[in-house]
Amino acid sequence: MRIEIICTGDEVLSGQTVNTNYSYISQKLIDVGLEVRWGTTIGDDRETLLQAFRLAAGRVDAVIVNGGLGPTIDDLSQEVAAQAAGVELVFSQEWFGKMEELFRKRSRVMPPNNRKQAMLPQGAELLDNPIGTACGFALDIGKTRFFFTPGVPRELHRMLDEQIIPRLLAKSGQQTVSFLKRFHSYGLGESHVDSLLAGVEALVPDGSLKLGFRAHYPQLETKLAVRGTDTEDIRRKLAPVEQEVRKRLGNFILAEDDQKLEGVILEELTRREASLAVVETFTGGAIAARIASLPGAEKVFRRGIVARELAEIYADVGLHEYPVTGELTAATAKTVARATRHRIGTTHVLAVLIELDEGADRIDFGGTILIAIATEKETVSRRSRILGGREWVRLGAVEMSLDCLRRYLQGLPVDERIDFEKV
Amino acid sequence: MRIEIICTGDEVLSGQTVNTNYSYISQKLIDVGLEVRWGTTIGDDRETLLQAFRLAAGRVDAVIVNGGLGPTIDDLSQEVAAQAAGVELVFSQEWFGKMEELFRKRSRVMPPNNRKQAMLPQGAELLDNPIGTACGFALDIGKTRFFFTPGVPRELHRMLDEQIIPRLLAKSGQQTVSFLKRFHSYGLGESHVDSLLAGVEALVPDGSLKLGFRAHYPQLETKLAVRGTDTEDIRRKLAPVEQEVRKRLGNFILAEDDQKLEGVILEELTRREASLAVVETFTGGAIAARIASLPGAEKVFRRGIVARELAEIYADVGLHEYPVTGELTAATAKTVARATRHRIGTTHVLAVLIELDEGADRIDFGGTILIAIATEKETVSRRSRILGGREWVRLGAVEMSLDCLRRYLQGLPVDERIDFEKV
Repeated sequence: MRIEIICTGDEVLSGQTVNTNYSYISQKLIDVGLEVRWGTTIGDDRETLLQAFRLAAGRVDAVIVNGGLGPTIDDLSQEVAAQAAGVELVFSQEWFGKMEELFRKRSRVMPPNNRKQAMLPQGAELLDNPIGTACGFALDIGKTRFFFTPGVPRELHRMLDEQIIPRLLAKSGQQTVSFLKRFHSYGLGESHVDSLLAGVEALVPDGSLKLGFRAHYPQLETKLAVRGTDTEDIRRKLAPVEQEVRKRLGNFILAEDDQKLEGVILEELTRREASLAVVETFTGGAIAARIASLPGAEKVFRRGIVARELAEIYADVGLHEYPVTGELTAATAKTVARATRHRIGTTHVLAVLIELDEGADRIDFGGTILIAIATEKETVSRRSRILGGREWVRLGAVEMSLDCLRRYLQGLPVDERIDFEKV
Repeated sequence: MRIEIICTGDEVLSGQTVNTNYSYISQKLIDVGLEVRWGTTIGDDRETLLQAFRLAAGRVDAVIVNGGLGPTIDDLSQEVAAQAAGVELVFSQEWFGKMEELFRKRSRVMPPNNRKQAMLPQGAELLDNPIGTACGFALDIGKTRFFFTPGVPRELHRMLDEQIIPRLLAKSGQQTVSFLKRFHSYGLGESHVDSLLAGVEALVPDGSLKLGFRAHYPQLETKLAVRGTDTEDIRRKLAPVEQEVRKRLGNFILAEDDQKLEGVILEELTRREASLAVVETFTGGAIAARIASLPGAEKVFRRGIVARELAEIYADVGLHEYPVTGELTAATAKTVARATRHRIGTTHVLAVLIELDEGADRIDFGGTILIAIATEKETVSRRSRILGGREWVRLGAVEMSLDCLRRYLQGLPVDERIDFEKV
């Protein structure tokens, strides 16, 4: 069953409001195995609305229209729905009674223009909205079933769950379910991962598994969207592909599904009953901030030490032989990490020193990144260089440092070559 | 001139990614006085793309297509654009050379499948992307001009500004110039600001000035979009309205135009040849990170001290009478700020202590925020409480703390009541 979502309102058309209702509806439908084929965004304009309703009626089986059910003159959904279906608007005593009841409960007087919200296309099926005055309704336009929903998010959410999704599932008569498996990685570019994963889709010969990517620097998300007759069918199809993805991307997979890099680190440290201190320079606190505010981090994260000048850090952690000349080396980072462990007394220290290029920001502006991790047993380090502008270096350094710590905690090499560094 | 925005990609169609690119493009166009009439969202599907391009070509004068220019097999924009325009795909030596250059600058080897990004529809006009491998291009499909843009936000933003908006303005044949004046504020809600500014549009009687807002919690952007015959005309219209906005929003305006809150703070501190240390708890380094990585911050920002436990901070700054019982007070924050000044020796210290509610995250989860600013002369403080969930509290606390410091440096009251706090 093909579904379209039509979002109406000058605010979403103009971008003044980011259209989170659209993504909410779409995700909800996909989660229950329905297929969204088309999204349309239009303003509060009679002619455009009519055109959009007619186009949708011609190309999909069901449409969810969001917005335009309010009491003001720019709310046109009922009126245009009636026009598109070729019926009259009629007064719903049932809905008017519910609105009166709602106002009474809130001890408010209903303004006269709310009466408009009880005008529904003849023959429309009422979709209850127990928490607002906008009446949802369903109506056929041509052969397509249209579901009209309010723009207020909490009213929309409830109506979707209670009224619309059950009707769509019944209408679709669909036996298939769908599932999205996600892998998060750092260090390999999208096209690199794409070529590493060449042919994995073919492991499910009926074409019901689709490989996709979402790059959000510095991380990349690799997605396997799979459809099947039931959960067991999906599990069976997914298993060999998952295994293959894990094998080919190996150490670069930092988390799966809803896991996050910082969450994985916190989990590893919590399991060890370990404690963490972070030392950072140009990243300015951004590395610590990723971990320190997580629920449960209060048991693990002990200290963040931030300074732009290495001399400040040296003084703070009780080092005296400050290296006056020469460039930073991995040995400097190791010295700082060890001294910090000594001073703060945590089981783990992550120290990240960055030497920025001179001059103004530019596309090949870079930074040298020195990462050290100190524990009671040992101190490991990684030296890298990232180019691509000041902000690019900053984001890359934060991710690389956290990923180094993740690798260390998982017993993986911390200095595996990545695509984003200059060697 | 009627414009349509087509956003492509399974991740936006499925709602997995909230479509912020759409709202960005739409706002940008409206800000320069162009009119967006239609938004379409479709997946990485050849047939649907073709259908969407043909529909758009039939109903608007210009189309911006976003996404689908990547190197992977699910990136179909060039191919379908060529098909819709009835032309072949041809290899662009020019773009291929630029890609090679980009990879060289970043010291990376170009993977073979990136070659696909240099395949453009015959006759397409190249739109430069100086910071990425996705080549923008413009092409007529029917009588409509299509502009193809990359999905990566920073690449899209730059291409819109530098390449597309000038072409659209030229195409629209508008003789008028437009200008967007922006005010950034923290602490007043959108409807509150809207009512405070009632009537300011009317100060320009010909209707050529439009007031708009963009709320991105915790900040609000107030926008004055003005059109005129030339720069002088715009200046003349804008002046009295700007003055009125500044008068009515007063101390809540934290920056204007491209300025940022952290930039304003850094400027104030730099001018005084001052130095800064930041102490923070639940915010985990996020306050320091906003300032410490800015260009020039190395001269001002000296130290960030981060810990989740107050005892850690007490020990670090040399305080011994640690308050064992009772809730945190503004006096605690003042004590910490003063002790930090004593220990680090900066001219200014910003200390932000947060006491989170107990239990799981929920919509009325809150935090008590204690802010103190210490200088040689005095120590000021602010106590506040924010509700709305863990992340909401964290973001609110970062912004409130920075805004307190901004207010202090500008000689304004630091404890003016805001809309987002519970008293």
